[in-house]
Amino acid sequence: MPSEFDLIQRYFKRPINGIPLGIGDDAAIIAPSPGMELAISTDCLVVGQHFFENTDPYKLGYKALAVNLSDMAAMGAVPRWMTLSLTLPHSLIDHHESWLDEFSRGFHELAAMHQVALIGGDTTSGPLNICVQIIGEVNQGQWLRRSGAEPGDDIWVSGCLGDAALALKHHLHELVLTDEEFAYCSSALDMPSARVALGQRLIELAHSAIDISDGLIADLGHILSCSARSATVELEMVPGSEIMKRYLPSPLAVECLMAGGDDYELCFTAPKGNQSAIRQLGQELQVPLSIVGEIKPQKTLKSELIIYGSKGEKIVMEKKGYDHFAS
Amino acid sequence: MPSEFDLIQRYFKRPINGIPLGIGDDAAIIAPSPGMELAISTDCLVVGQHFFENTDPYKLGYKALAVNLSDMAAMGAVPRWMTLSLTLPHSLIDHHESWLDEFSRGFHELAAMHQVALIGGDTTSGPLNICVQIIGEVNQGQWLRRSGAEPGDDIWVSGCLGDAALALKHHLHELVLTDEEFAYCSSALDMPSARVALGQRLIELAHSAIDISDGLIADLGHILSCSARSATVELEMVPGSEIMKRYLPSPLAVECLMAGGDDYELCFTAPKGNQSAIRQLGQELQVPLSIVGEIKPQKTLKSELIIYGSKGEKIVMEKKGYDHFAS
Repeated sequence: MPSEFDLIQRYFKRPINGIPLGIGDDAAIIAPSPGMELAISTDCLVVGQHFFENTDPYKLGYKALAVNLSDMAAMGAVPRWMTLSLTLPHSLIDHHESWLDEFSRGFHELAAMHQVALIGGDTTSGPLNICVQIIGEVNQGQWLRRSGAEPGDDIWVSGCLGDAALALKHHLHELVLTDEEFAYCSSALDMPSARVALGQRLIELAHSAIDISDGLIADLGHILSCSARSATVELEMVPGSEIMKRYLPSPLAVECLMAGGDDYELCFTAPKGNQSAIRQLGQELQVPLSIVGEIKPQKTLKSELIIYGSKGEKIVMEKKGYDHFAS
Repeated sequence: MPSEFDLIQRYFKRPINGIPLGIGDDAAIIAPSPGMELAISTDCLVVGQHFFENTDPYKLGYKALAVNLSDMAAMGAVPRWMTLSLTLPHSLIDHHESWLDEFSRGFHELAAMHQVALIGGDTTSGPLNICVQIIGEVNQGQWLRRSGAEPGDDIWVSGCLGDAALALKHHLHELVLTDEEFAYCSSALDMPSARVALGQRLIELAHSAIDISDGLIADLGHILSCSARSATVELEMVPGSEIMKRYLPSPLAVECLMAGGDDYELCFTAPKGNQSAIRQLGQELQVPLSIVGEIKPQKTLKSELIIYGSKGEKIVMEKKGYDHFAS
C-alpha cells in the first residue's frame, strides 16, 4: 500500500512558480500581491451526497475544483492558490493507479486552465470526501457581493439553467432522457463551467452576484435577503437549453430550470444603464447573458421573490432549491 | 430538520473584527497586513481514523482546531483566519443541539484563546469529517521550515512525548492504565497544546522545526530528509511524563514515546550557541524544552536517524510512526 507521502508526490505535487514555499512543509507560504485583498472559500464533495459512487474520477477531479472556482467567479476574484483535503476509502487507495491518475488529471487540467496552484492539503483514509479550499485575489474593496442589489436592477443569469438537474433526474429515474440528451446534460452536471472571467469583469458593471449552486430561486433568494429587497422573475425569460425546452413546461422541467442545483452559472443584478455594456461583455466572452427579472423599488424586511408565468399569472413552486440536509 | 443556513448562523457565525467580509457570501474577504506573507495549511479529522465515534464533541471541536494551530506553530506563524468544512451524519444533524453546541463550544473557545477568526466554511451531510483550513501571517521570508537543519545542531523537543499514544493504547486494550493515568493521558490525546507562542519565538533561534503529529521518529525523519542530514537521538533524553516513566522501558512504552502520534509538540533544531537563549525562552513560556540529540556533520543523500539506548547500544524500532493509510 502506498504511503500518504507517496500519493502526494505522485499525484498532487506539481512545479509551482512564484510562491515562497509549496507542498512538503507544515504549511505553504504565499506572498499576496501588494495592496490586494484575498477571497477565501471552501467547498466539499461528499460521496452519495454530491456525486454517485461510480462517478468517473476524471470528472470528479474536475468538478471538485470547478465548484470552488465558481465561488471565486461569484466574488469577481482571480483564483490563485488552493489546498486539497482528500479522504479516500481503502479500496481507492489500493487501486490508486487508475482512480487517482484520473482524479488528479481532471483536477490539474482545470487548475492549469485557470493558473491556480495546488499549494498543500491533507490525505486521510475514510469514506470518500473531497474538500478544496481556494484563495483568490481582488483589488482592495472591489469584489462582487450578495448584498448590493439596488431598486430597479435587472436580474441577469449566465448560460442555461437546469441541464445538470435534468441529468440528475435521469439518474434518479424521475425522467428518461435520450442518450444524446443525457450526454449533453451530464456534461453540465459533471463538468460545469465556472464563470471566472465573467465574474472579474462584472465588478465594474454589477451591483450584486452569486453563483447558482442550489438553484435560481434559492440563490437569487440569498441576494434578496442579503440586500433586503424583493424581486420579480419571468419564467419565460429564464434561459433553458434546446433540450430543456423539449421538456418545458412540465412541472418537473420547471423545477429543474428554477430550482435545480449544480448549474454554477452566475446570477447578478445590475443597473439598467449597463445593459448594453453587459451584452457586449457577453459577446466578447462568448457567454450567453439573459435578463430574467427585476429588483423591486421598495426596501423590504422580508424578501419576496414573485415568479410570473407567460400569461402574467403568479407561479407557486414547492421546491425552493437544494439544501444539503434536506434529503 | 435545521437547514445548513440555520446551523451556520446558530453555531458558527460569530462577530469578527477587522476583515472586510465574513461568513455569508460566496467567499470571505481578508486583508493581509502589508508586507506579510501567509502560511496556509489544512488538516482533517475523520471518524474511525483520528477519533472514536463516541468522542466528546467539545474535545473534538477543540482538537480539530488544535491540530491546525500546531501547523502554524511549526511555521512560527501567527494564526489569523480559518475555514471549517464539516460533513455531518444525519444522526448528528437531528441531534444537533447537544452535539453541535458542544463541538462549536470547544472550537470557539480555542479560537478565542488564539484570536483566530472563523471566516467561512462548508456544511454537508455524510460520514463525519472535519476539515479546518488555517491561514497565518509571517514576516516576509521569516518562517520555520523543515529543511534548515545544520551540522551540529541540537535537536530539541517541547513538552513530553507519548502520553497521547498511551491513552490510545488503553482505548485499544493494548495496555491498561489506572483511571488517574488514563485521565491525564486522555487530555494529551483529546486536547493537545499547540505551541503557537513557542513557534513564533523560535524563528530567531531555530534552524528547522516540525510539529510532532506522527511521532518523533517520523517527524524528525522529515526534518532530516528535507535537510539532507542524518542525526542521533538518545532515548534516555527524550522527555516522558511521570506516567510514561512508570511504563518505560517496556517496548510498548518506548514505541509510544518515540513513534506515538498525536503529541503536537514541536521538534526543532538549533545551533549550540543558542542553548541558553532557548532554555530561557522555555522558562518564560513555561514550556519544558529538552535536547534529545544532534544533527550529524555530514550532508547525506539518504538520511539516517540512529537511536542510542542508555548503554550506548543502537536501538532498532519496528514502528517508525503513524501513516494514515497503514491501518
